[in-house]
Amino acid sequence: MQLVHSISALRSALAGQHAAFVPTMGALHDGHISLMNAARTHADTVVASIFVNRLQFGPNEDFDRYPRTLAADCERLAAAGVSVVFAPAEDELYPEAQTFHVEPPAIASQLEGEFRPGHFRGVATVVLKLFNIVQPQVALFGKKDYQQLAILRSMARQLALPFPIIGVDTLRDSDGLALSSRNRYLSVAERQQAPQLYRTLCALRDAIHGGASDFAGLEREASASLDATGWKSDYIAIRRRADLAVPTTGERELVILAASRLGNTRLIDNIEL
Amino acid sequence: MQLVHSISALRSALAGQHAAFVPTMGALHDGHISLMNAARTHADTVVASIFVNRLQFGPNEDFDRYPRTLAADCERLAAAGVSVVFAPAEDELYPEAQTFHVEPPAIASQLEGEFRPGHFRGVATVVLKLFNIVQPQVALFGKKDYQQLAILRSMARQLALPFPIIGVDTLRDSDGLALSSRNRYLSVAERQQAPQLYRTLCALRDAIHGGASDFAGLEREASASLDATGWKSDYIAIRRRADLAVPTTGERELVILAASRLGNTRLIDNIEL
Repeated sequence: MQLVHSISALRSALAGQHAAFVPTMGALHDGHISLMNAARTHADTVVASIFVNRLQFGPNEDFDRYPRTLAADCERLAAAGVSVVFAPAEDELYPEAQTFHVEPPAIASQLEGEFRPGHFRGVATVVLKLFNIVQPQVALFGKKDYQQLAILRSMARQLALPFPIIGVDTLRDSDGLALSSRNRYLSVAERQQAPQLYRTLCALRDAIHGGASDFAGLEREASASLDATGWKSDYIAIRRRADLAVPTTGERELVILAASRLGNTRLIDNIEL
Repeated sequence: MQLVHSISALRSALAGQHAAFVPTMGALHDGHISLMNAARTHADTVVASIFVNRLQFGPNEDFDRYPRTLAADCERLAAAGVSVVFAPAEDELYPEAQTFHVEPPAIASQLEGEFRPGHFRGVATVVLKLFNIVQPQVALFGKKDYQQLAILRSMARQLALPFPIIGVDTLRDSDGLALSSRNRYLSVAERQQAPQLYRTLCALRDAIHGGASDFAGLEREASASLDATGWKSDYIAIRRRADLAVPTTGERELVILAASRLGNTRLIDNIEL
Protein backbone atom coordinates (compact mmCIF):
# COMPACT_ATOMS: atom_id res chain seq x y z
CA MET A 1 0.00 0.00 0.00
CA GLN A 2 1.26 3.45 -0.90
CA LEU A 3 0.68 6.43 1.40
CA VAL A 4 0.87 9.70 -0.51
CA HIS A 5 0.43 13.24 0.68
CA SER A 6 0.52 15.32 -2.49
CA ILE A 7 -1.81 15.58 -5.47
CA SER A 8 1.07 14.99 -7.88
CA ALA A 9 2.22 11.88 -5.99
CA LEU A 10 -1.32 10.54 -6.01
CA ARG A 11 -1.65 11.10 -9.75
CA SER A 12 1.68 9.34 -10.31
CA ALA A 13 0.66 6.45 -8.05
CA LEU A 14 -2.53 5.96 -10.03
CA ALA A 15 -0.82 6.65 -13.39
CA GLY A 16 -4.11 6.91 -15.19
CA GLN A 17 -5.60 3.68 -13.82
CA HIS A 18 -9.10 4.21 -12.61
CA ALA A 19 -9.94 3.15 -9.10
CA ALA A 20 -12.76 2.73 -6.66
CA PHE A 21 -12.56 5.69 -4.29
CA VAL A 22 -13.61 5.97 -0.65
CA PRO A 23 -13.21 9.46 0.85
CA THR A 24 -12.93 9.48 4.65
CA MET A 25 -11.99 11.79 7.50
CA GLY A 26 -9.92 9.02 9.10
CA ALA A 27 -10.48 7.73 12.64
CA LEU A 28 -11.45 4.56 10.86
CA HIS A 29 -13.73 1.89 12.30
CA ASP A 30 -15.23 -1.32 10.91
CA GLY A 31 -17.86 0.70 9.04
CA HIS A 32 -15.13 2.29 6.94
CA ILE A 33 -13.54 -1.10 6.38
CA SER A 34 -16.83 -2.43 5.05
CA LEU A 35 -16.72 0.46 2.54
CA MET A 36 -13.22 -0.63 1.48
CA ASN A 37 -14.42 -4.22 1.09
CA ALA A 38 -17.32 -3.05 -1.05
CA ALA A 39 -14.90 -0.91 -3.09
CA ARG A 40 -12.74 -3.97 -3.83
CA THR A 41 -15.70 -5.60 -5.56
CA HIS A 42 -15.86 -2.64 -7.99
CA ALA A 43 -12.21 -2.21 -9.01
CA ASP A 44 -8.79 -3.81 -8.64
CA THR A 45 -7.40 -0.59 -7.24
CA VAL A 46 -8.95 0.99 -4.15
CA VAL A 47 -8.00 4.53 -3.14
CA ALA A 48 -8.96 5.88 0.27
CA SER A 49 -8.50 9.49 1.26
CA ILE A 50 -8.06 10.71 4.81
CA PHE A 51 -8.71 14.40 5.25
CA VAL A 52 -10.47 16.23 8.07
CA ASN A 53 -12.13 18.91 5.98
CA ARG A 54 -12.34 22.22 7.84
CA LEU A 55 -14.85 23.57 5.26
CA GLN A 56 -17.60 21.25 6.49
CA PHE A 57 -17.26 22.09 10.19
CA GLY A 58 -19.08 25.02 11.76
CA PRO A 59 -17.16 27.47 13.98
CA ASN A 60 -18.43 25.79 17.17
CA GLU A 61 -18.06 22.22 15.98
CA ASP A 62 -15.45 19.58 16.78
CA PHE A 63 -12.90 20.25 14.01
CA ASP A 64 -10.00 20.64 16.44
CA ARG A 65 -10.83 17.68 18.63
CA TYR A 66 -11.89 15.41 15.75
CA PRO A 67 -9.80 12.25 16.21
CA ARG A 68 -6.70 11.93 13.98
CA THR A 69 -5.24 8.43 13.96
CA LEU A 70 -3.28 8.20 10.70
CA ALA A 71 -0.87 5.39 11.64
CA ALA A 72 -3.63 3.10 12.91
CA ASP A 73 -5.82 4.02 9.95
CA CYS A 74 -3.08 3.04 7.49
CA GLU A 75 -2.61 -0.34 9.18
CA ARG A 76 -6.31 -1.05 8.84
CA LEU A 77 -6.42 0.10 5.23
CA ALA A 78 -3.40 -2.02 4.27
CA ALA A 79 -5.06 -5.05 5.87
CA ALA A 80 -8.24 -4.27 3.93
CA GLY A 81 -6.43 -4.41 0.60
CA VAL A 82 -6.42 -0.69 -0.13
CA SER A 83 -3.77 0.19 -2.75
CA VAL A 84 -3.29 3.91 -2.20
CA VAL A 85 -4.03 6.20 0.74
CA PHE A 86 -4.21 9.91 -0.03
CA ALA A 87 -3.67 11.91 3.16
CA PRO A 88 -3.04 15.52 2.15
CA ALA A 89 -2.09 18.25 4.59
CA GLU A 90 -4.52 21.14 4.70
CA ASP A 91 -2.32 23.41 2.57
CA GLU A 92 -2.07 20.75 -0.12
CA LEU A 93 -5.82 20.68 -0.63
CA TYR A 94 -6.36 24.36 0.18
CA PRO A 95 -3.10 26.13 -0.83
CA GLU A 96 -5.13 29.35 -1.04
CA ALA A 97 -8.39 30.33 0.63
CA GLN A 98 -11.12 28.25 -1.03
CA THR A 99 -13.32 30.88 -2.68
CA PHE A 100 -15.04 28.64 -5.23
CA HIS A 101 -17.73 26.44 -3.73
CA VAL A 102 -20.21 23.88 -4.90
CA GLU A 103 -23.51 25.32 -3.69
CA PRO A 104 -26.12 22.60 -3.11
CA PRO A 105 -29.89 23.22 -3.27
CA ALA A 106 -32.35 23.94 -0.47
CA ILE A 107 -32.43 20.37 0.92
CA ALA A 108 -28.89 21.07 2.15
CA SER A 109 -30.32 23.61 4.62
CA GLN A 110 -32.70 21.11 6.19
CA LEU A 111 -32.10 18.25 8.68
CA GLU A 112 -28.30 18.19 9.21
CA GLY A 113 -28.02 21.45 7.29
CA GLU A 114 -30.37 23.24 9.67
CA PHE A 115 -28.13 22.42 12.60
CA ARG A 116 -24.85 22.60 10.67
CA PRO A 117 -25.16 25.63 8.36
CA GLY A 118 -22.78 25.41 5.42
CA HIS A 119 -21.94 21.77 6.20
CA PHE A 120 -23.04 20.32 2.87
CA ARG A 121 -21.51 23.15 0.88
CA GLY A 122 -18.21 22.19 2.51
CA VAL A 123 -18.82 18.50 1.87
CA ALA A 124 -19.82 18.99 -1.78
CA THR A 125 -16.85 21.26 -2.45
CA VAL A 126 -14.20 18.97 -0.98
CA VAL A 127 -15.72 15.84 -2.48
CA LEU A 128 -15.82 17.36 -5.95
CA LYS A 129 -12.22 18.46 -5.51
CA LEU A 130 -11.18 14.98 -4.37
CA PHE A 131 -13.05 13.50 -7.34
CA ASN A 132 -11.07 15.74 -9.69
CA ILE A 133 -7.85 14.63 -8.04
CA VAL A 134 -8.57 10.88 -7.97
CA GLN A 135 -10.75 10.63 -11.13
CA PRO A 136 -12.24 7.37 -9.91
CA GLN A 137 -14.40 4.92 -11.85
CA VAL A 138 -16.71 4.64 -8.87
CA ALA A 139 -17.00 6.32 -5.45
CA LEU A 140 -18.49 4.80 -2.29
CA PHE A 141 -20.10 6.48 0.72
CA GLY A 142 -21.78 5.08 3.82
CA LYS A 143 -25.53 5.24 4.27
CA LYS A 144 -24.86 6.30 7.85
CA ASP A 145 -24.54 9.84 6.45
CA TYR A 146 -27.74 9.41 4.51
CA GLN A 147 -28.34 13.04 3.63
CA GLN A 148 -24.73 13.43 2.52
CA LEU A 149 -25.13 10.43 0.22
CA ALA A 150 -28.39 11.82 -1.21
CA ILE A 151 -26.82 15.23 -1.84
CA LEU A 152 -23.68 13.79 -3.43
CA ARG A 153 -25.74 11.55 -5.68
CA SER A 154 -27.75 14.53 -6.76
CA MET A 155 -24.53 16.52 -7.32
CA ALA A 156 -23.10 13.71 -9.43
CA ARG A 157 -26.22 13.69 -11.59
CA GLN A 158 -26.50 17.47 -11.94
CA LEU A 159 -22.81 18.04 -12.66
CA ALA A 160 -22.68 15.04 -15.04
CA LEU A 161 -19.89 13.27 -13.17
CA PRO A 162 -18.69 10.39 -15.32
CA PHE A 163 -18.94 7.66 -12.64
CA PRO A 164 -21.52 6.28 -10.21
CA ILE A 165 -21.86 6.92 -6.48
CA ILE A 166 -22.52 3.78 -4.45
CA GLY A 167 -24.14 3.76 -1.00
CA VAL A 168 -23.03 1.13 1.50
CA ASP A 169 -25.17 -0.11 4.40
CA THR A 170 -24.46 1.13 7.91
CA LEU A 171 -22.49 -1.21 10.15
CA ARG A 172 -23.76 -1.56 13.73
CA ASP A 173 -22.47 -2.91 17.00
CA SER A 174 -24.34 -5.95 18.31
CA ASP A 175 -26.56 -3.65 20.41
CA GLY A 176 -27.58 -1.68 17.32
CA LEU A 177 -25.43 1.45 17.71
CA ALA A 178 -24.28 2.66 14.30
CA LEU A 179 -20.48 2.70 14.07
CA SER A 180 -19.15 6.25 14.03
CA SER A 181 -15.83 7.96 14.62
CA ARG A 182 -17.62 10.14 17.15
CA ASN A 183 -18.64 7.14 19.30
CA ARG A 184 -15.22 7.39 20.94
CA TYR A 185 -16.35 10.67 22.54
CA LEU A 186 -18.96 8.74 24.58
CA SER A 187 -18.44 7.97 28.28
CA VAL A 188 -19.07 4.39 29.41
CA ALA A 189 -22.54 5.36 30.66
CA GLU A 190 -23.34 7.25 27.46
CA ARG A 191 -22.15 4.30 25.38
CA GLN A 192 -24.66 2.10 27.20
CA GLN A 193 -27.43 4.56 26.51
CA ALA A 194 -26.46 5.26 22.88
CA PRO A 195 -28.30 2.31 21.19
CA GLN A 196 -31.54 3.98 22.25
CA LEU A 197 -31.28 6.19 19.17
CA TYR A 198 -31.46 3.21 16.82
CA ARG A 199 -34.15 1.53 18.93
CA THR A 200 -36.22 4.70 18.57
CA LEU A 201 -35.84 4.53 14.78
CA CYS A 202 -36.80 0.84 14.78
CA ALA A 203 -39.89 1.57 16.88
CA LEU A 204 -40.92 4.30 14.44
CA ARG A 205 -40.40 1.95 11.51
CA ASP A 206 -42.53 -0.71 13.20
CA ALA A 207 -45.27 1.81 13.95
CA ILE A 208 -45.37 2.92 10.30
CA HIS A 209 -45.35 -0.67 9.10
CA GLY A 210 -48.21 -1.23 11.56
CA GLY A 211 -50.25 1.47 9.85
CA ALA A 212 -49.44 4.67 11.77
CA SER A 213 -49.68 7.58 9.37
CA ASP A 214 -49.52 10.79 11.42
CA PHE A 215 -45.85 11.31 10.64
CA ALA A 216 -45.58 14.70 12.32
CA GLY A 217 -47.09 13.24 15.49
CA LEU A 218 -44.79 10.22 15.38
CA GLU A 219 -41.74 12.47 14.99
CA ARG A 220 -42.78 14.66 17.92
CA GLU A 221 -43.47 11.72 20.25
CA ALA A 222 -40.24 9.93 19.35
CA SER A 223 -38.23 13.08 19.94
CA ALA A 224 -39.98 13.79 23.26
CA SER A 225 -39.55 10.28 24.61
CA LEU A 226 -35.85 10.27 23.67
CA ASP A 227 -35.31 13.67 25.30
CA ALA A 228 -37.13 12.50 28.44
CA THR A 229 -34.23 10.09 29.05
CA GLY A 230 -31.47 12.68 28.79
CA TRP A 231 -30.99 13.12 25.05
CA LYS A 232 -31.30 16.46 23.30
CA SER A 233 -32.69 15.80 19.86
CA ASP A 234 -32.00 18.08 16.89
CA TYR A 235 -34.48 16.27 14.65
CA ILE A 236 -36.26 13.02 14.03
CA ALA A 237 -37.75 13.15 10.55
CA ILE A 238 -39.66 10.79 8.29
CA ARG A 239 -38.73 11.65 4.71
CA ARG A 240 -39.02 10.42 1.18
CA ARG A 241 -35.94 8.40 0.27
CA ALA A 242 -35.31 9.80 -3.19
CA ASP A 243 -34.93 13.48 -2.34
CA LEU A 244 -35.52 13.68 1.44
CA ALA A 245 -38.65 15.77 0.88
CA VAL A 246 -41.53 15.58 3.37
CA PRO A 247 -43.52 12.60 2.11
CA THR A 248 -47.01 12.91 0.72
CA THR A 249 -49.76 10.51 1.84
CA GLY A 250 -49.25 6.91 0.74
CA GLU A 251 -45.54 7.37 0.00
CA ARG A 252 -43.79 4.01 0.59
CA GLU A 253 -40.11 4.64 -0.09
CA LEU A 254 -39.28 6.27 3.21
CA VAL A 255 -36.30 6.86 5.43
CA ILE A 256 -36.31 8.01 9.03
CA LEU A 257 -33.40 10.26 9.96
CA ALA A 258 -32.36 11.38 13.41
CA ALA A 259 -29.73 13.54 15.10
CA SER A 260 -29.54 13.75 18.86
CA ARG A 261 -27.02 14.77 21.49
CA LEU A 262 -25.93 12.64 24.41
CA GLY A 263 -23.87 14.87 26.69
CA ASN A 264 -21.40 16.62 24.41
CA THR A 265 -21.63 14.04 21.65
CA ARG A 266 -23.88 14.48 18.67
CA LEU A 267 -24.96 11.20 17.07
CA ILE A 268 -26.84 10.68 13.81
CA ASP A 269 -28.54 7.59 12.45
CA ASN A 270 -31.22 6.56 9.99
CA ILE A 271 -33.26 3.60 8.85
CA GLU A 272 -34.77 2.88 5.45
CA LEU A 273 -38.32 1.54 5.27
CA MET B 1 -16.56 15.21 -38.22
CA GLN B 2 -19.19 13.76 -35.91
CA LEU B 3 -22.10 15.87 -34.69
CA VAL B 4 -23.56 14.44 -31.47
CA HIS B 5 -26.40 15.69 -29.33
CA SER B 6 -26.38 13.41 -26.29
CA ILE B 7 -23.89 12.94 -23.47
CA SER B 8 -23.80 9.19 -24.07
CA ALA B 9 -23.13 9.65 -27.81
CA LEU B 10 -20.34 12.09 -27.02
CA ARG B 11 -18.75 9.68 -24.56
CA SER B 12 -18.95 6.89 -27.16
CA ALA B 13 -17.50 9.14 -29.86
CA LEU B 14 -14.54 9.97 -27.64
CA ALA B 15 -14.27 6.41 -26.29
CA GLY B 16 -11.86 7.43 -23.57
CA GLN B 17 -9.50 9.37 -25.84
CA HIS B 18 -8.63 12.72 -24.38
CA ALA B 19 -9.18 15.77 -26.49
CA ALA B 20 -8.62 19.49 -26.64
CA PHE B 21 -11.95 21.09 -25.84
CA VAL B 22 -13.37 24.44 -26.96
CA PRO B 23 -16.77 25.30 -25.43
CA THR B 24 -18.76 27.84 -27.48
CA MET B 25 -22.26 29.24 -27.75
CA GLY B 26 -22.17 28.85 -31.53
CA ALA B 27 -22.71 31.75 -33.96
CA LEU B 28 -19.11 31.09 -34.85
CA HIS B 29 -16.75 33.64 -36.35
CA ASP B 30 -13.04 33.66 -37.20
CA GLY B 31 -12.19 34.21 -33.53
CA HIS B 32 -13.70 30.83 -32.67
CA ILE B 33 -11.86 29.23 -35.57
CA SER B 34 -8.57 30.57 -34.24
CA LEU B 35 -9.44 28.76 -30.98
CA MET B 36 -9.97 25.52 -32.93
CA ASN B 37 -6.63 26.00 -34.68
CA ALA B 38 -4.91 26.56 -31.36
CA ALA B 39 -6.68 23.46 -30.00
CA ARG B 40 -5.28 21.33 -32.84
CA THR B 41 -1.74 22.14 -31.65
CA HIS B 42 -2.59 20.60 -28.26
CA ALA B 43 -4.27 17.32 -29.23
CA ASP B 44 -5.09 15.14 -32.22
CA THR B 45 -8.77 15.23 -31.34
CA VAL B 46 -10.57 18.55 -31.01
CA VAL B 47 -14.05 18.68 -29.47
CA ALA B 48 -16.17 21.82 -29.77
CA SER B 49 -19.43 22.28 -27.93
CA ILE B 50 -22.25 24.53 -29.08
CA PHE B 51 -24.73 25.40 -26.37
CA VAL B 52 -26.47 28.68 -25.61
CA ASN B 53 -26.49 28.43 -21.85
CA ARG B 54 -29.60 29.96 -20.32
CA LEU B 55 -28.00 29.91 -16.85
CA GLN B 56 -25.56 32.67 -17.74
CA PHE B 57 -28.11 35.08 -19.20
CA GLY B 58 -30.00 37.55 -17.02
CA PRO B 59 -33.79 37.83 -17.33
CA ASN B 60 -33.50 40.98 -19.52
CA GLU B 61 -30.61 39.77 -21.64
CA ASP B 62 -30.49 38.45 -25.19
CA PHE B 63 -30.94 34.70 -24.57
CA ASP B 64 -33.89 34.41 -26.93
CA ARG B 65 -32.43 36.49 -29.74
CA TYR B 66 -28.90 35.14 -29.37
CA PRO B 67 -27.98 33.91 -32.89
CA ARG B 68 -28.28 30.15 -33.51
CA THR B 69 -26.54 29.04 -36.71
CA LEU B 70 -25.81 25.33 -36.18
CA ALA B 71 -25.53 24.24 -39.82
CA ALA B 72 -23.14 27.04 -40.75
CA ASP B 73 -21.20 26.48 -37.51
CA CYS B 74 -20.73 22.80 -38.32
CA GLU B 75 -19.40 23.58 -41.79
CA ARG B 76 -16.83 25.93 -40.34
CA LEU B 77 -15.84 23.45 -37.62
CA ALA B 78 -15.44 20.61 -40.13
CA ALA B 79 -13.22 22.83 -42.28
CA ALA B 80 -11.19 23.70 -39.18
CA GLY B 81 -10.40 20.04 -38.49
CA VAL B 82 -12.66 19.61 -35.47
CA SER B 83 -13.38 15.90 -34.82
CA VAL B 84 -16.52 16.05 -32.69
CA VAL B 85 -19.17 18.71 -32.19
CA PHE B 86 -21.33 18.37 -29.08
CA ALA B 87 -24.57 20.31 -29.53
CA PRO B 88 -26.95 19.22 -26.76
CA ALA B 89 -30.54 20.37 -26.52
CA GLU B 90 -31.36 22.21 -23.33
CA ASP B 91 -33.06 19.21 -21.71
CA GLU B 92 -30.02 17.04 -22.38
CA LEU B 93 -27.77 19.30 -20.34
CA TYR B 94 -30.48 20.35 -17.85
CA PRO B 95 -32.92 17.40 -17.68
CA GLU B 96 -34.02 18.73 -14.29
CA ALA B 97 -33.83 22.23 -12.83
CA GLN B 98 -30.16 22.93 -12.15
CA THR B 99 -30.06 23.34 -8.37
CA PHE B 100 -26.35 22.69 -7.83
CA HIS B 101 -24.14 25.60 -8.84
CA VAL B 102 -20.49 26.45 -8.86
CA GLU B 103 -20.39 29.66 -6.84
CA PRO B 104 -17.42 31.84 -7.79
CA PRO B 105 -15.82 34.38 -5.44
CA ALA B 106 -16.40 38.12 -5.13
CA ILE B 107 -14.54 39.08 -8.31
CA ALA B 108 -17.47 37.50 -10.19
CA SER B 109 -19.70 40.32 -8.92
CA GLN B 110 -17.48 43.06 -10.32
CA LEU B 111 -17.00 44.34 -13.89
CA GLU B 112 -19.17 42.06 -16.08
CA GLY B 113 -20.67 40.55 -12.93
CA GLU B 114 -21.87 43.95 -11.69
CA PHE B 115 -23.90 44.43 -14.86
CA ARG B 116 -24.78 40.77 -15.36
CA PRO B 117 -25.63 39.40 -11.89
CA GLY B 118 -25.28 35.63 -11.74
CA HIS B 119 -23.54 35.52 -15.12
CA PHE B 120 -20.32 33.90 -13.92
CA ARG B 121 -22.15 31.45 -11.66
CA GLY B 122 -23.95 30.28 -14.80
CA VAL B 123 -20.73 30.17 -16.78
CA ALA B 124 -18.78 28.29 -14.11
CA THR B 125 -21.58 25.78 -13.61
CA VAL B 126 -22.06 24.91 -17.28
CA VAL B 127 -18.34 24.84 -18.00
CA LEU B 128 -17.68 22.47 -15.10
CA LYS B 129 -20.52 20.28 -16.30
CA LEU B 130 -19.16 20.28 -19.87
CA PHE B 131 -15.71 19.45 -18.51
CA ASN B 132 -17.16 16.44 -16.69
CA ILE B 133 -18.83 15.32 -19.90
CA VAL B 134 -15.86 15.80 -22.24
CA GLN B 135 -13.04 15.06 -19.74
CA PRO B 136 -10.55 16.91 -21.96
CA GLN B 137 -6.79 16.98 -21.66
CA VAL B 138 -6.84 20.74 -22.24
CA ALA B 139 -9.53 23.40 -22.64
CA LEU B 140 -9.24 26.66 -24.57
CA PHE B 141 -11.04 29.98 -24.12
CA GLY B 142 -10.69 33.33 -25.86
CA LYS B 143 -9.09 36.30 -24.13
CA LYS B 144 -11.92 38.41 -25.52
CA ASP B 145 -13.90 37.26 -22.46
CA TYR B 146 -10.99 38.11 -20.21
CA GLN B 147 -12.81 37.99 -16.89
CA GLN B 148 -14.41 34.68 -17.82
CA LEU B 149 -10.97 33.26 -18.61
CA ALA B 150 -9.57 34.55 -15.30
CA ILE B 151 -12.49 33.07 -13.33
CA LEU B 152 -12.32 29.71 -15.08
CA ARG B 153 -8.56 29.50 -14.52
CA SER B 154 -9.12 30.21 -10.88
CA MET B 155 -11.90 27.60 -10.76
CA ALA B 156 -9.64 25.03 -12.40
CA ARG B 157 -6.95 25.68 -9.79
CA GLN B 158 -9.28 25.71 -6.79
CA LEU B 159 -11.25 22.62 -7.82
CA ALA B 160 -8.05 20.76 -8.82
CA LEU B 161 -9.16 20.10 -12.38
CA PRO B 162 -6.71 17.65 -13.94
CA PHE B 163 -5.97 19.67 -17.09
CA PRO B 164 -4.84 23.20 -18.04
CA ILE B 165 -6.95 26.09 -19.31
CA ILE B 166 -5.37 27.94 -22.24
CA GLY B 167 -6.18 31.53 -23.19
CA VAL B 168 -6.12 32.46 -26.88
CA ASP B 169 -5.57 36.01 -28.18
CA THR B 170 -8.52 38.03 -29.43
CA LEU B 171 -8.97 38.19 -33.17
CA ARG B 172 -9.83 41.63 -34.59
CA ASP B 173 -11.14 43.03 -37.84
CA SER B 174 -8.69 45.22 -39.74
CA ASP B 175 -10.17 48.32 -38.09
CA GLY B 176 -9.52 46.88 -34.64
CA LEU B 177 -13.02 45.71 -33.67
CA ALA B 178 -12.81 42.50 -31.65
CA LEU B 179 -14.70 39.68 -33.36
CA SER B 180 -17.86 38.79 -31.46
CA SER B 181 -21.07 36.91 -32.17
CA ARG B 182 -22.91 40.01 -31.02
CA ASN B 183 -21.33 42.21 -33.76
CA ARG B 184 -24.08 40.99 -36.08
CA TYR B 185 -26.56 42.97 -33.98
CA LEU B 186 -24.85 46.22 -35.11
CA SER B 187 -26.39 48.47 -37.77
CA VAL B 188 -24.08 49.66 -40.58
CA ALA B 189 -23.59 53.00 -38.84
CA GLU B 190 -22.94 51.31 -35.48
CA ARG B 191 -20.47 48.95 -37.12
CA GLN B 192 -18.50 51.95 -38.37
CA GLN B 193 -18.46 53.46 -34.93
CA ALA B 194 -17.71 50.20 -33.08
CA PRO B 195 -13.85 50.23 -33.39
CA GLN B 196 -13.86 53.28 -31.16
CA LEU B 197 -14.03 50.95 -28.17
CA TYR B 198 -10.71 49.34 -29.01
CA ARG B 199 -9.17 52.70 -29.95
CA THR B 200 -10.15 53.98 -26.51
CA LEU B 201 -8.39 51.00 -24.89
CA CYS B 202 -5.28 51.60 -27.04
CA ALA B 203 -5.22 55.27 -26.07
CA LEU B 204 -5.42 54.33 -22.40
CA ARG B 205 -2.61 51.83 -22.83
CA ASP B 206 -0.45 54.46 -24.53
CA ALA B 207 -1.18 56.97 -21.79
CA ILE B 208 -0.13 54.48 -19.10
CA HIS B 209 2.98 53.53 -21.04
CA GLY B 210 3.67 57.27 -21.27
CA GLY B 211 3.64 57.54 -17.49
CA ALA B 212 0.04 58.41 -16.61
CA SER B 213 -0.72 56.93 -13.22
CA ASP B 214 -4.07 58.36 -12.05
CA PHE B 215 -5.93 55.24 -13.07
CA ALA B 216 -9.30 56.32 -11.65
CA GLY B 217 -9.03 59.61 -13.55
CA LEU B 218 -8.04 57.85 -16.77
CA GLU B 219 -10.99 55.48 -16.47
CA ARG B 220 -13.42 58.36 -15.88
CA GLU B 221 -12.13 60.41 -18.81
CA ALA B 222 -12.13 57.47 -21.21
CA SER B 223 -15.67 56.56 -20.26
CA ALA B 224 -16.89 60.15 -20.57
CA SER B 225 -15.29 60.73 -23.96
CA LEU B 226 -16.74 57.47 -25.30
CA ASP B 227 -20.19 58.31 -23.96
CA ALA B 228 -19.97 61.81 -25.49
CA THR B 229 -20.08 60.16 -28.92
CA GLY B 230 -23.20 58.10 -28.30
CA TRP B 231 -21.94 55.10 -26.34
CA LYS B 232 -23.27 54.14 -22.92
CA SER B 233 -20.41 52.65 -20.99
CA ASP B 234 -20.91 50.10 -18.21
CA TYR B 235 -17.26 50.22 -17.14
CA ILE B 236 -13.77 50.95 -18.27
CA ALA B 237 -11.39 49.52 -15.69
CA ILE B 238 -7.64 49.21 -15.31
CA ARG B 239 -6.98 46.04 -13.33
CA ARG B 240 -4.24 43.68 -12.26
CA ARG B 241 -3.98 40.83 -14.77
CA ALA B 242 -3.59 37.96 -12.33
CA ASP B 243 -6.80 38.38 -10.32
CA LEU B 244 -8.48 41.49 -11.82
CA ALA B 245 -8.05 43.32 -8.51
CA VAL B 246 -7.63 47.11 -8.49
CA PRO B 247 -3.89 47.56 -8.99
CA THR B 248 -1.61 49.02 -6.36
CA THR B 249 0.94 51.69 -7.29
CA GLY B 250 3.74 50.45 -9.53
CA GLU B 251 1.87 47.34 -10.66
CA ARG B 252 3.04 46.48 -14.20
CA GLU B 253 1.00 43.41 -15.22
CA LEU B 254 -2.18 45.21 -16.12
CA VAL B 255 -5.21 44.72 -18.29
CA ILE B 256 -7.77 47.33 -19.29
CA LEU B 257 -11.32 45.99 -19.59
CA ALA B 258 -14.34 47.74 -21.04
CA ALA B 259 -18.03 47.14 -21.65
CA SER B 260 -20.12 49.68 -23.47
CA ARG B 261 -23.41 49.82 -25.33
CA LEU B 262 -23.90 51.08 -28.84
CA GLY B 263 -27.65 51.30 -29.42
CA ASN B 264 -29.05 47.98 -28.22
CA THR B 265 -25.78 46.12 -28.56
CA ARG B 266 -23.45 45.61 -25.66
CA LEU B 267 -19.81 45.13 -26.64
CA ILE B 268 -16.88 44.14 -24.44
CA ASP B 269 -13.18 44.28 -25.11
CA ASN B 270 -9.87 44.40 -23.29
CA ILE B 271 -6.17 44.94 -23.82
CA GLU B 272 -3.23 43.57 -21.87
CA LEU B 273 -0.36 45.89 -21.00
